[in-house]
Amino acid sequence: MTAQSRTVQGINPRSGEKVGSPVPETSAGQLGEVLAAAAAAGQFGASRPSVRAGLLRALADRLDERSGELVPLAAAESGLPVARLTGEVARTSGQLRLFAEVIEDGAYLEVITDSANPVAAPPLPRLRRWLEPVGPVLIFAASNFPFAFSVLGGDTASALASGCPVIVKAHPSHPGLSRLVADLASRVVADLDLPPGVFAVIFGDDAGLDALRDPRITAAGFTGSTAGGRFLLDVAASRRVPIPFYGELGSINPVVITPAAVAARGAQIARDFAASMTLGTGQFCTKPGLLFLPAGHGLDEVLAAAVSAIDAAPMLNARIRDQWATGMAELAATPDVEPVADGQPAPPAGSWASPALLRTTAAAVTRDKGTLIEEHFGPTGLMVEYRDLGDLLAALGTVEGSLTATLHAEDIDDFAVAALVNRLRDIAGRVIYNGWPTGVAVAWAMNHGGPWPSTTHSGHTSVGATAIRRWLRPVCYQSMPDALLPEGLRSANPWRLPRRADGVLTPR
Amino acid sequence: MTAQSRTVQGINPRSGEKVGSPVPETSAGQLGEVLAAAAAAGQFGASRPSVRAGLLRALADRLDERSGELVPLAAAESGLPVARLTGEVARTSGQLRLFAEVIEDGAYLEVITDSANPVAAPPLPRLRRWLEPVGPVLIFAASNFPFAFSVLGGDTASALASGCPVIVKAHPSHPGLSRLVADLASRVVADLDLPPGVFAVIFGDDAGLDALRDPRITAAGFTGSTAGGRFLLDVAASRRVPIPFYGELGSINPVVITPAAVAARGAQIARDFAASMTLGTGQFCTKPGLLFLPAGHGLDEVLAAAVSAIDAAPMLNARIRDQWATGMAELAATPDVEPVADGQPAPPAGSWASPALLRTTAAAVTRDKGTLIEEHFGPTGLMVEYRDLGDLLAALGTVEGSLTATLHAEDIDDFAVAALVNRLRDIAGRVIYNGWPTGVAVAWAMNHGGPWPSTTHSGHTSVGATAIRRWLRPVCYQSMPDALLPEGLRSANPWRLPRRADGVLTPR
Repeated sequence: MTAQSRTVQGINPRSGEKVGSPVPETSAGQLGEVLAAAAAAGQFGASRPSVRAGLLRALADRLDERSGELVPLAAAESGLPVARLTGEVARTSGQLRLFAEVIEDGAYLEVITDSANPVAAPPLPRLRRWLEPVGPVLIFAASNFPFAFSVLGGDTASALASGCPVIVKAHPSHPGLSRLVADLASRVVADLDLPPGVFAVIFGDDAGLDALRDPRITAAGFTGSTAGGRFLLDVAASRRVPIPFYGELGSINPVVITPAAVAARGAQIARDFAASMTLGTGQFCTKPGLLFLPAGHGLDEVLAAAVSAIDAAPMLNARIRDQWATGMAELAATPDVEPVADGQPAPPAGSWASPALLRTTAAAVTRDKGTLIEEHFGPTGLMVEYRDLGDLLAALGTVEGSLTATLHAEDIDDFAVAALVNRLRDIAGRVIYNGWPTGVAVAWAMNHGGPWPSTTHSGHTSVGATAIRRWLRPVCYQSMPDALLPEGLRSANPWRLPRRADGVLTPR
Repeated sequence: MTAQSRTVQGINPRSGEKVGSPVPETSAGQLGEVLAAAAAAGQFGASRPSVRAGLLRALADRLDERSGELVPLAAAESGLPVARLTGEVARTSGQLRLFAEVIEDGAYLEVITDSANPVAAPPLPRLRRWLEPVGPVLIFAASNFPFAFSVLGGDTASALASGCPVIVKAHPSHPGLSRLVADLASRVVADLDLPPGVFAVIFGDDAGLDALRDPRITAAGFTGSTAGGRFLLDVAASRRVPIPFYGELGSINPVVITPAAVAARGAQIARDFAASMTLGTGQFCTKPGLLFLPAGHGLDEVLAAAVSAIDAAPMLNARIRDQWATGMAELAATPDVEPVADGQPAPPAGSWASPALLRTTAAAVTRDKGTLIEEHFGPTGLMVEYRDLGDLLAALGTVEGSLTATLHAEDIDDFAVAALVNRLRDIAGRVIYNGWPTGVAVAWAMNHGGPWPSTTHSGHTSVGATAIRRWLRPVCYQSMPDALLPEGLRSANPWRLPRRADGVLTPR
């Protein structure tokens, strides 16, 4: 390294102080080596699922074993509480183990075979089709989940499971943790005698951009802001060879409360909303940003009490904190918006934020068509009061795509609940009934995706078993002799894969 | 219509003469009505599969019934032979019927359910996830298959099957046929009492571009040239709300012949290649454009005889013919390229082309890295002679993504056949053994896709049962009461859908 080399320095957002020593940015020469190694690791894609399941479980075990060392560093660099981060390590190792199950199950390969039919018109040749890994994948790590959406997070787990070599561009908010996890992972790869190019972490925005433009990268994943995601999406789309860019961007996550729900359990809903909105200092992709309540709901006091009881907390970094504060100030200065409550005040040092709840009307949202319902990443919520169903539906009509949309209603509710579910479904990838969007279960059926701007491609998810589909492409072998087929596709079905054969689905 | 209105005029490429009366381009006002009707047809997406299967089969039946009227018009506008077009109608109605089967089978919905587990950490809520239609879809019809990749072609069939309203931008090469098929389809939609916005055809490049930019369009499909597809992809990607654009663009479709295959059946391979390369006047997406042969193959005479016996034939339109002729002239003027054979000469009127086979070496292809192996849409093939395996693999290393790649080898072949299959798999979506790429079977297992530039997204296919996946997005319902779920997702499984429940796959 020369004296001119740039570095990434972790900062404790609680205090504003430096954490550990700076991590050097990846140089162009180092990036070239990383990309060459990833491109040379193609055999990883042809490995048996058991090999990759072994890798995923070894990574999970190592994370769990090293939790006591990793969590304090994560806490120092992110300002997030130790208990939350300890849970997040378990979530992250759980994700890795889920993908081990997914690839051992094998249905994700979508094997479809058709027998030859020489008398059909036109004649049908013997076809065997399944999914194969696309090639080296670039993952942009997020700031808000230093484990679950970072170096060994869900994007990495699903891509490694698929057989794609992975290069992670570390998030600058937790460089020390990223380097520690990278070293841990590289040692696991080496211990298992896998090609070293299977996994690498790079540091620095320039390295990330250069990697995204490199022809050896075949797909990319991203979790972050709408502005940042849009910028990178445009880079991916304007390459000479465009590649899929799966970004999870901003999400407003509307919550609709019917009059009957207010009547039945308004106070509880108010308290739960305040808790969900401020979880992780409001820095969840699924933070409920809009609370639609019927006018005259009478919950002002309980909402104000719930919000004002919540402590200020550090945000992930100074930039995020400043953006949140600017957005909040703009929102508060908007005509038709008034404050409802603030949380406990923030200390002057570090990058702290105090929760805030504001209020407007559905009519104002409808009139405004946008500004009022932008995402404010941080502990902010906007209560939107509606007069009637028409008023509510008109305001919902201006809400863009979200990861989630939530409805609180009663089983015997005379409000047009079915119409509301349909409307919420149109704008979201997950529709929640009488629950809260924060806390994304890692499960077979989870969908963590949705229409723009919540993701760049509503056809896919970044959480749950089906997240693996992003890193795969179909390949069909026509009239290929058994011996030349990939092992898993051979007639004897040695991997015991679920298959659709001549149109009939067979689990094993 | 005012006197200034623009029109699309069908031209018979055999003679250069006009076919029928001109079709008016769709005005901005008409397009607005079409888009509004599509956006208002959202209930189509919630219809039972049986409703949409009924629509697909009715469209198929009507196409078959009207074949005698449609085929002569298609022949006049496209210059393609009546026998080929008659077969194409059957293929097209077969595609519509396949998608009726696909949606009745129901596995395409990818139903996944997880039971609630309140003691898990974090607690797992009840989740029910499946795929739902994305919304109105815009399809750009192709010139080269006036039925199978046009108004009621595979893109339309798969999108209608998914529950998406479809707007087809007609290809200007067969406007009369497009209008006739559009009228036929609209009558079927009306007869079945479906919303009129379920299906529409628009005419004119401006209308197509305006539709692609319209916020009501949620996804697009395209089959055509690399230049045209790239232009539209960039439009789709640069929208304020970017949408998926599934384009099938150019494909060189390399064919590799091993020395043992030459020895065993070289003459037959040469004749079959000449036939495949000139099928449909070389205007197939899967036309084999490159024929890799070992140096000293001794097949010059039989190849020359096969090609020179083939008649000249009209191309689809004058623009395509002129582009082909220009590309051919450039290729023939390239150093290291020499002519092998020409087909029968073309008449002066109309837009005819005479087949041509040229020759170069693998070393020249490797050196040149691109120009020599561009697609020439039309009856042109380039023979590439290789000295040895290294020479062959180096040249293949410069070949970009293709829909297909073909290998001719012998069962006891000492050439590195497995390595060749792997290399061909890396660049193609379908790998064919001892066969030919033209003639794309419509089947469950077919994949008609591949790495750029053969498609804009190698994760998907435009032919075969799985083509429906392009028009769907996952939606997850969390803790939703049965009565508020879409019918097909309810606990009793009224549609008898295959499901994965708590991780276990069950066919019914």
